[in-house]
Amino acid sequence: MSSVNHTDPTVLPTIANRWSPYRYSDRQVEDSALRTCFEAARWAASSYNDQPWYWIVTRQEAQEFESLVRCLMEANQAWARKSPVLILSILRTSFAHNGQPNRVAAHDLGQATAFLSLQACELGLQVHQMGGINLSAARQSFQLPEGFEPYTAVAMGYPSEAPAESEQDKLLEKRELASRQRRPLSKMVFINAWGQPSKIF
Amino acid sequence: MSSVNHTDPTVLPTIANRWSPYRYSDRQVEDSALRTCFEAARWAASSYNDQPWYWIVTRQEAQEFESLVRCLMEANQAWARKSPVLILSILRTSFAHNGQPNRVAAHDLGQATAFLSLQACELGLQVHQMGGINLSAARQSFQLPEGFEPYTAVAMGYPSEAPAESEQDKLLEKRELASRQRRPLSKMVFINAWGQPSKIF
Repeated sequence: MSSVNHTDPTVLPTIANRWSPYRYSDRQVEDSALRTCFEAARWAASSYNDQPWYWIVTRQEAQEFESLVRCLMEANQAWARKSPVLILSILRTSFAHNGQPNRVAAHDLGQATAFLSLQACELGLQVHQMGGINLSAARQSFQLPEGFEPYTAVAMGYPSEAPAESEQDKLLEKRELASRQRRPLSKMVFINAWGQPSKIF
Repeated sequence: MSSVNHTDPTVLPTIANRWSPYRYSDRQVEDSALRTCFEAARWAASSYNDQPWYWIVTRQEAQEFESLVRCLMEANQAWARKSPVLILSILRTSFAHNGQPNRVAAHDLGQATAFLSLQACELGLQVHQMGGINLSAARQSFQLPEGFEPYTAVAMGYPSEAPAESEQDKLLEKRELASRQRRPLSKMVFINAWGQPSKIF
């Protein structure tokens, strides 16, 4: 089971094969796989090598997993509750070396999480990132100290290979099987000036 | 020539081999390579699939390349001027589907640029991202429309294989050859609660 896409064949297979499932198998995520995913994230680039990224990992059986589910938008709670691992991504708002605000902290957290998503894909896992979380609930539930901000939630697991049975699952499966769409390159990459197209793209 | 690192051997080779050079060879970046790098970026995940990422690409021979160099922090101008390609990364601040502010636009731009950096590495290229840019100069030089913000600059090219000759280059080479350092996983990944370590990490 995987989402259809129309990626150019020259792109890294791991990038082409990454997608965001709504349905996960019961298979547990091995400790070693979790470790490798975060090891990949750790090697992302960051401004001044500040590494402003932090994560709290919860497994489905932990009480804290349900606390994190409750921080999600209601529309995501039902499917995310069935993922074996939920992660809260967190950023440090100021540079460690001088205490000044880090304008690009969220950008760099995104880079690290992107690496995590690819490493997961490489291991047969997938992640589904969620920007829609209740930030104050997350901050309170996980008692983040001053200077650290909750940012996104990330569901992780092995995608379900089983055909959907319940009506609810059939709707989720339909969303999974829908073609992944992106704007054409010519609408996002310009040459020399804003809006100026190039035959390259 | 590549930067030393101590990445866990289970990590994707492309992630392990990515680094941020200060010295580039004279070799041109082929149109097809540029296209593939942005094609990879295009397939990043984003909140509501909003794809808030845009880029303006300049080649060294273009007048606009020098305009972009002048938007960089002074410390980066000399080496970045010798890279064959400089890119201005830009984000759209509001969601396309409803016009509401996109809290995670920078995060998602970071994800796309992370994919670009890996695809570059896969092709033998490398990129060096710079958060330190003069935002108002960039906005003015490239006349970005309302609702779009310059975010980072990205130098791209084939890393120089030649030993440094000038004193300036020797200093840059020394920075390149320094070991890539990251905080240990146990300081960035917690289990169930902030600051709670796990034997996994």
